[in-house]
Amino acid sequence: MALLAFFKLGFRCWKQNVICFKKNSTFFFQTFSSILQSEEYGRLLSGLDIAKTIQTSLRDQVKKLKLQHSYLTPQLAIVQVGSREDSNVYIRMKLKAAENIGIIATHLCLPSNTNQTELLRALSHLNLNPSVHGIIVQMPLDSVNMIDSTLITDAVIPSKDVDGLNTINQGKLAVGDLVSGFLPCTPNGCVELIKRTGTRIEGSRAVIIGRSKIVGTPTAELLKWHNATVTICHSKTKNLPEVVAGADILVVGVGQPNMVKGDWIKQGAVVIDCGINHFPDTKRLSGYRLVGDVDFEQARKRVSWITPVPGGVGPMTVAMLMKNTVLAALKCNKP
Amino acid sequence: MALLAFFKLGFRCWKQNVICFKKNSTFFFQTFSSILQSEEYGRLLSGLDIAKTIQTSLRDQVKKLKLQHSYLTPQLAIVQVGSREDSNVYIRMKLKAAENIGIIATHLCLPSNTNQTELLRALSHLNLNPSVHGIIVQMPLDSVNMIDSTLITDAVIPSKDVDGLNTINQGKLAVGDLVSGFLPCTPNGCVELIKRTGTRIEGSRAVIIGRSKIVGTPTAELLKWHNATVTICHSKTKNLPEVVAGADILVVGVGQPNMVKGDWIKQGAVVIDCGINHFPDTKRLSGYRLVGDVDFEQARKRVSWITPVPGGVGPMTVAMLMKNTVLAALKCNKP
Repeated sequence: MALLAFFKLGFRCWKQNVICFKKNSTFFFQTFSSILQSEEYGRLLSGLDIAKTIQTSLRDQVKKLKLQHSYLTPQLAIVQVGSREDSNVYIRMKLKAAENIGIIATHLCLPSNTNQTELLRALSHLNLNPSVHGIIVQMPLDSVNMIDSTLITDAVIPSKDVDGLNTINQGKLAVGDLVSGFLPCTPNGCVELIKRTGTRIEGSRAVIIGRSKIVGTPTAELLKWHNATVTICHSKTKNLPEVVAGADILVVGVGQPNMVKGDWIKQGAVVIDCGINHFPDTKRLSGYRLVGDVDFEQARKRVSWITPVPGGVGPMTVAMLMKNTVLAALKCNKP
Repeated sequence: MALLAFFKLGFRCWKQNVICFKKNSTFFFQTFSSILQSEEYGRLLSGLDIAKTIQTSLRDQVKKLKLQHSYLTPQLAIVQVGSREDSNVYIRMKLKAAENIGIIATHLCLPSNTNQTELLRALSHLNLNPSVHGIIVQMPLDSVNMIDSTLITDAVIPSKDVDGLNTINQGKLAVGDLVSGFLPCTPNGCVELIKRTGTRIEGSRAVIIGRSKIVGTPTAELLKWHNATVTICHSKTKNLPEVVAGADILVVGVGQPNMVKGDWIKQGAVVIDCGINHFPDTKRLSGYRLVGDVDFEQARKRVSWITPVPGGVGPMTVAMLMKNTVLAALKCNKP
């Protein structure tokens, strides 16, 4: 009887092992297969996820700051003229992020009949307000009057220019001073994304398509000062696919949906897509979907990493703005 | 008799023709041979010659200005600390050029024990002096005290920053404003040289080696805004010869004698050598000769145009400084 029980137990264990083995094998092959499959596609460089970790860190920083200096809460003023819907969306994102972190964010919304003098006067008050550490002017200005946007950007005192777009801050970045001013938010976000892939920027070939003041130009400068060999392309560049094919790191900011084709891209490149374009899509209630400047579906078969649109660069821009605001408060507090 | 005279004349003419033909043929073959020979070598892009034509034009401009406004003579203040021999040479060139053009140039030579505060004070006086239209501070500062050269450069009021090195002017150039400030002299000189070759900058591939504030960075920006596709290389660039080989236009400013080898260079490229290096040469009384950053003898077998050192970029830098000074006086005079 004991022997029978022994054999029954043995059989049961053996059967259990076979079941386990089958389960594990299935799991193994399924996982291996999905790894192989994902090897065909580059990984998604989620700005959304990375921005969350940055915001968590900023939240802790702000808490410490308040503990050390009870009077000091970083404060950001967002100035808007008019009420463009896209601007409204971006401002809401910024207000929400600020609230999440513990930054006081005020939204000064001026009517669309505001003229240049009135806007300058509003900025002047904010410049002089010691409680306000950072000031941004949401672009584009939605005014019925002619307003020189460069004049406006330069009217923000450099020590509060948390957008980093003041000509002085642009100049500092150009000549390699990455510390005494503020780095523009989108470029800083792009470089932060690239760093998170583990890709070595130093010595790499970086190609930037676009030379705007907000994205292309400062991103090129920033990558140059991180020791990449940088090539800047634009609307007058010849043989663009050939130039793109040389890029280990590709940053695109041109505002043209799906302009950069997958087969232009070097195998294994890191692609940062700064484009936000409305692309007609009748399947959506809104009638459009958001696409970037890179043909995502094609590109992802070749890249090692690629930012999605939306959910890539956009959230990082907001995170960098918050980071600059906290930095402004810290600098302000230094003796 | 008449017939004999006729034949004699005919013979004489024929003989003369043969002599002429021989002379012409010799001349033809000699010239053709030298053309062939010079086809093996790129043409010299003489900054000395081009600077002379620019100075002639500026001289006329200054004359007209004085006729229109008798009180108005462009005035340039050159501030030097200490007395480095190389600085003395450059300042003499600038004073001479100014005199040649009709610009009043004053040389404020401060002793080497000058400190930062004293230098700032001197600059402040010049900033406030309405007769002074342009101010340059000759670098490097030869002082026994620590002086922040960026602070000094930024202390020159932007409207008199005829060196174009103030951070604001650097920022303007970075974002494409080529008119409201002053373009840095050496980069502006480089671009002027390139234009004079007839080479189309737009759409070309331009490679800049060096990212200094004075040469590399602003030259890259300026070429970018002239619509070249620009690549910036530096000490951390990998495979530099490969990058150089792609350049239609190559600008080198690294301060390393003969660094760029001839066989790196694309056949027919335009090469602008901004280097001024003392190279040991026992055959010379001084013990050295001036060489650029490009191996000139090798490079000229491949280029279409190349600047000599000396006599290339240096004179153009001075010419552009004079141009900026006249421009400063003109701007100052505008209501």
